[in-house]
Amino acid sequence: MPRLAERIAGLTGSPVREMLAVSQRPDMISFAGGLPAPETFAEVDLSGMPRDLLQYGPSEGELALRARIAEELAGLGLDCGADRVLVLSGSQQGIDLAAKLAVEPGTAVAVESPAYLAALQVFRLFGARLQPLEWSVPPALAYVTPTFQNPTGRCWSAAERAALAAACDRDEVILFEDDPYRDLAYDPCERRPVASLLERASWIYQGSFSKTLAPGLRLGFMAASEDLFAHLARLKQAADLHANRISQWIALRHLEDPGRQGRMERIVTHYRDRRDRFAEALERHLGNKASWTAPAGGLFFWVELDADPDALLERALERGVLFTPGRHFVADASPCRAIRLNFSLETPERAERGLEILGELLRAA
Amino acid sequence: MPRLAERIAGLTGSPVREMLAVSQRPDMISFAGGLPAPETFAEVDLSGMPRDLLQYGPSEGELALRARIAEELAGLGLDCGADRVLVLSGSQQGIDLAAKLAVEPGTAVAVESPAYLAALQVFRLFGARLQPLEWSVPPALAYVTPTFQNPTGRCWSAAERAALAAACDRDEVILFEDDPYRDLAYDPCERRPVASLLERASWIYQGSFSKTLAPGLRLGFMAASEDLFAHLARLKQAADLHANRISQWIALRHLEDPGRQGRMERIVTHYRDRRDRFAEALERHLGNKASWTAPAGGLFFWVELDADPDALLERALERGVLFTPGRHFVADASPCRAIRLNFSLETPERAERGLEILGELLRAA
Repeated sequence: MPRLAERIAGLTGSPVREMLAVSQRPDMISFAGGLPAPETFAEVDLSGMPRDLLQYGPSEGELALRARIAEELAGLGLDCGADRVLVLSGSQQGIDLAAKLAVEPGTAVAVESPAYLAALQVFRLFGARLQPLEWSVPPALAYVTPTFQNPTGRCWSAAERAALAAACDRDEVILFEDDPYRDLAYDPCERRPVASLLERASWIYQGSFSKTLAPGLRLGFMAASEDLFAHLARLKQAADLHANRISQWIALRHLEDPGRQGRMERIVTHYRDRRDRFAEALERHLGNKASWTAPAGGLFFWVELDADPDALLERALERGVLFTPGRHFVADASPCRAIRLNFSLETPERAERGLEILGELLRAA
Repeated sequence: MPRLAERIAGLTGSPVREMLAVSQRPDMISFAGGLPAPETFAEVDLSGMPRDLLQYGPSEGELALRARIAEELAGLGLDCGADRVLVLSGSQQGIDLAAKLAVEPGTAVAVESPAYLAALQVFRLFGARLQPLEWSVPPALAYVTPTFQNPTGRCWSAAERAALAAACDRDEVILFEDDPYRDLAYDPCERRPVASLLERASWIYQGSFSKTLAPGLRLGFMAASEDLFAHLARLKQAADLHANRISQWIALRHLEDPGRQGRMERIVTHYRDRRDRFAEALERHLGNKASWTAPAGGLFFWVELDADPDALLERALERGVLFTPGRHFVADASPCRAIRLNFSLETPERAERGLEILGELLRAA
């Protein structure tokens, strides 16, 4: 038997991936993942790509891209220049870097409950003790997705944002704000980064190009307070030297594209329509069997059931419908009767059919 | 003060990057990095790239690419199918994944001395106790680059390969074989992977597309024994979900290109010529001040000096010449008077000029 690190004993894979591996139906209606709609992906014109991008590049990312991202962040009220922007190989990587920075066995990490599953997995991998956001003993790190959270779709109020910022300032807790959905806003709501409200606490803020450009490019970015940035840049270098330079070039062209604003408005209109039609179909098929709040942005409905989600999933899989039971997103082992439904990927027609099946199964139970 | 993980206290950056930051000369002659020559990079024709690559992809990598890599590995005698090939965001990432798999504070890791600097940094980050390859108490992991090693350029004999395989088998040590330079072979020599000689030990074998295709794509691959593979795939998923899909598509086209063999022969001829001219210039300028063995492959000369490398570097920087002192590659703190000189990047004319300057400085000392 090879001697492995203790952290491997608790290493789990993605339940969505494992469900997909079990299910062999090619026409599965999937509400389970978090996939953007392919029709929203940017046109990628790679003609004119400079050939010198094929060489190794800087670990922090391309300077022009970092500068352009810094401008965007300044517009959100974040205090950082280009020299504190780190280009990531997708924002999942940012979670890995933040965990390496601040988490070792026994480190207290405060998280929302429910919270983004793959972040919980990484924090657990590094030995974190996960605890609720309302702390008595301050954690080392607080990880939050205040804007259109995965899985709940919830968007924090201004007061909630101010309260967390004040708590981090007071207790010297590192704020780690994950903000991949902020541009997918369908209704007016508060979106100001919590990190922009801090007065003295250390912070990490990250965003993603997966929802506004294309996930296959694996590109995200991180900014951080001055005391953390150099460490994070070194951790990035140790992790994979630097992010893919073709993707960085595509992202820079996207940020500089005068048609960008119009394109983003079309994406938002498209998803708003999907959300609305999904909400109508939910009402038609699950209206008296479940409860939910339509999200003001993002990609998910969080739907509370009267039934056991795992039993429902087992029957749904037989009927070709896939979703993610909410318990996977819960940091402690407390029971959870909610399910997460992604509304961005399936067409309204297929979503209608999938929700009809879930409704039938819930009524038959 | 934010509370950081203990591992951050020992986190260091790349000495090459730090030297470059200090030096502001735009026309620096650099023997310091490990950059391939840009004229060897593949032609990248992205017309016809399928648009569905823009969506999220599988964590293990594209199936067709994994299958093609598995064929190559079978040709090297490695026992693994496509289901045990993991596509990496560059082979630096493989070191991060292997360290997560097997290294925690105090874990004994056997390494060559000198060894690849960025691997030592990652193992140290995870708390490894580095020890020599000739062990009395077996380590958990043995990390080696037997073929055209960075920094020494050395290629192990068949007997050395067999001996390490036998030791890993006997003592249940995980073999981690890093093989990014194997295709850059200028003279005949033994290149059989040590991993292919194992009878029972667990193993990880990795390769890179950075030297044969282009480093800016950040693409490598890993294969592993059955007991390790699923863990590594989960660690890959937690690290960045999956590798860039455009790069994976480029790599697959490269592997399937009927002109590939001819292209690789031209690259090898080009680098063999650079090596030979570099050796001649070394002889001319450092002949009586240093000793070396011309490497049979790879990208580096390892040159033993009579002088102090750091003092030489200080003066060389003033004259616009950069190299890497060998001590950075030494796992323990033992003194090292060697320097590493990269011969792939600079033109023969610039290399000649740079070595002439080093020779002058050594004679003046």
